[in-house]
Amino acid sequence: MKTVSKGVCAAKGFRAGGVHCGIRKNRTKRDLSLILSSVPASAAAVYTRNLVKGAPIYVTKENLKDGKAQAVIINSGNANTCNANGIEIAEGMCALVSEHLGIDSSLVVVASTGVIGQPLDLEPIKNGMPSLIDAVSEDGNMEAAEGIMTTDTVVKEAAVEFEIGGKICRLGGMAKGSGMIHPDMATMLVFITTDVSISPEMLDKALKGDVNETFNMLSVDGDTSTNDMVTVLANGMAGNETIVSEGDDFSLFMKALNSVTVSLCRMIAGDGEGATKLLECSVTGAADIKTAKTVAKSVICSSLLKAAMFGADANWGRVLCAIGYSGADIDPLKVDVSFKSPAGEIEVCRNGSGVDFSEDEAKKILLEKEIEIKVGLNSGNCASKAWGCDLTYDYVKINGDYRT
Amino acid sequence: MKTVSKGVCAAKGFRAGGVHCGIRKNRTKRDLSLILSSVPASAAAVYTRNLVKGAPIYVTKENLKDGKAQAVIINSGNANTCNANGIEIAEGMCALVSEHLGIDSSLVVVASTGVIGQPLDLEPIKNGMPSLIDAVSEDGNMEAAEGIMTTDTVVKEAAVEFEIGGKICRLGGMAKGSGMIHPDMATMLVFITTDVSISPEMLDKALKGDVNETFNMLSVDGDTSTNDMVTVLANGMAGNETIVSEGDDFSLFMKALNSVTVSLCRMIAGDGEGATKLLECSVTGAADIKTAKTVAKSVICSSLLKAAMFGADANWGRVLCAIGYSGADIDPLKVDVSFKSPAGEIEVCRNGSGVDFSEDEAKKILLEKEIEIKVGLNSGNCASKAWGCDLTYDYVKINGDYRT
Repeated sequence: MKTVSKGVCAAKGFRAGGVHCGIRKNRTKRDLSLILSSVPASAAAVYTRNLVKGAPIYVTKENLKDGKAQAVIINSGNANTCNANGIEIAEGMCALVSEHLGIDSSLVVVASTGVIGQPLDLEPIKNGMPSLIDAVSEDGNMEAAEGIMTTDTVVKEAAVEFEIGGKICRLGGMAKGSGMIHPDMATMLVFITTDVSISPEMLDKALKGDVNETFNMLSVDGDTSTNDMVTVLANGMAGNETIVSEGDDFSLFMKALNSVTVSLCRMIAGDGEGATKLLECSVTGAADIKTAKTVAKSVICSSLLKAAMFGADANWGRVLCAIGYSGADIDPLKVDVSFKSPAGEIEVCRNGSGVDFSEDEAKKILLEKEIEIKVGLNSGNCASKAWGCDLTYDYVKINGDYRT
Repeated sequence: MKTVSKGVCAAKGFRAGGVHCGIRKNRTKRDLSLILSSVPASAAAVYTRNLVKGAPIYVTKENLKDGKAQAVIINSGNANTCNANGIEIAEGMCALVSEHLGIDSSLVVVASTGVIGQPLDLEPIKNGMPSLIDAVSEDGNMEAAEGIMTTDTVVKEAAVEFEIGGKICRLGGMAKGSGMIHPDMATMLVFITTDVSISPEMLDKALKGDVNETFNMLSVDGDTSTNDMVTVLANGMAGNETIVSEGDDFSLFMKALNSVTVSLCRMIAGDGEGATKLLECSVTGAADIKTAKTVAKSVICSSLLKAAMFGADANWGRVLCAIGYSGADIDPLKVDVSFKSPAGEIEVCRNGSGVDFSEDEAKKILLEKEIEIKVGLNSGNCASKAWGCDLTYDYVKINGDYRT
């Protein structure tokens, strides 16, 4: 398996594009994106568990009932959530794609991201459709990824190439997500495309299995968005024998999917609102996988630890504290903690008590941009990872005045 | 019932004091406090549910097994948590009180607050005991309250006077707490004293009932401390007929207790690390009390809402979002939201959708120091309140470099 470029356009038969249509006031920001497959594709999605859901979630769920999709339309600048006419607008977006491309509107995935509770006007989207369709190309992946950004500061794309049954396959994705990130079964907006041939059922199984290890182990600020959605379209154009059950081919597919989703997770965490550092908490020695996950996620979510990491302060007591209140059944007197980064690794706690360590060396390690918090529970063989970011002045600044 | 002064010294037979003994480097900050009852008192406590517990928690729990206590010793500047010799040091603190005052060391409550994972030296405490005992007086409540402060910026005390069976009774308390505040069954350090005569069993019942409505509905940063503890000592010197069962007297006592604990909760929330505003979320119309509590606490814990409140931004979508992911079973289409402060009240959401409102008026309301977020669920008759604070640059600053 190797990393390749072109994000959602990496796989055969996928084109994409993004334009500014006028939802956002800033004319230099793209706000409308489209991903297209040449042929109908197997499709699967997972959605936010927030009871307050964006209107596009309901419409996409309905459209994906048959496990098929061919196009994805996404706007940024407005979440189309908590609006009385939200469903109508989301269906209107699908109808526009249908009219312009001659595909059934039930083959359209629709998503929105931005401010909650402000009516979304269909007019600018309608007016922008011709230029959006013009913009769609085999190299439009970056523009499409730009069109879904809100407070994101970098485009988030990843893609890999691999072989199934002697056929070259590709799988790529794009993501948006920076704040309101604390997934529960699904998260943010992530769109994945692949030319692998796979049944809708197995695609669904692959996606659900993967998000539990990736997007559900990610937290920027503990807020689960109303519009979270991860979708994957698989159009079969790689020509492999269709994957219809578990086995070697399915495992290869899962591995490729995981490679792209982990990359996107790390990009989202590293670009968390106001973040200066990517944090990865790796837990080992857990009695079971649930314990490992619970501990990893609790550490990555601690505001106190996040602020300490911003200040490059090796305040490991906050790691212990977050492990202790996680709800996981662990033995505090067996916990080891160390901090690791490209500048080195330092042990700070053994068997639940502090060890002598050089504050200077710890500082050097924590001043890096990517920090791994290693937790050893010494009670079994299960492991897990979670991703997050530091808590900074800029997080407060960005969110103190987001709407105005 | 009326508000009175003198905090933990308000009730008959209680004296207190605080000194600087040298645990903290800053010589102007008191770091050792003592509360004394003239006679052994009924005593009850609730403790953190964090699995990583400070050593003083274990020692106090043991000492309170018989429901009796006469003295409380507390140090700040060091949490005595995650230290190999923590229990020995905490027991040493009790022994010092016993030696100097001639009371059994099992009648001593011990508590520590400050940095986790740094060995606590008994020497400065030993050396400070004579001056601490000198300092203890009927007017020493404020000094005692100062001695338990860490990042707190204001002394937190409250007291009330009330009558039970024709006898004048008083109940007062002091608290420390500013960060790492997200109680789970107990919270922070809170010490309550009263001259009411009440059995240890009923005192325990009163305290456990009360914290579920007060300290457990408080969150500054979502981190549950390792050293949380609320204790109450009732020495019976008011001369009322001892409360040994539920009834009018017990209800009066509960009301007095609640009055003081709510005051302390509001003080802690308003003095949350870096906070500029006290937030109160009041939920009404819930189908059951658990739903009301879950919703109120979820709203008060949302980082995004907390940052919006700092920016005086009426971003009600974040209230809906936090209600949606709370885990409570609510109907999003029935939710009403309004913001209220001394400057007025403004409705921003009705039946889950936005209503037209004046941004200028909303701004004026949200620029105040105390904001009430009113949530109507329109599904029943249960209500609850939770307290918190805004998320500010200073929270990050305080916690980015707490140890150094």
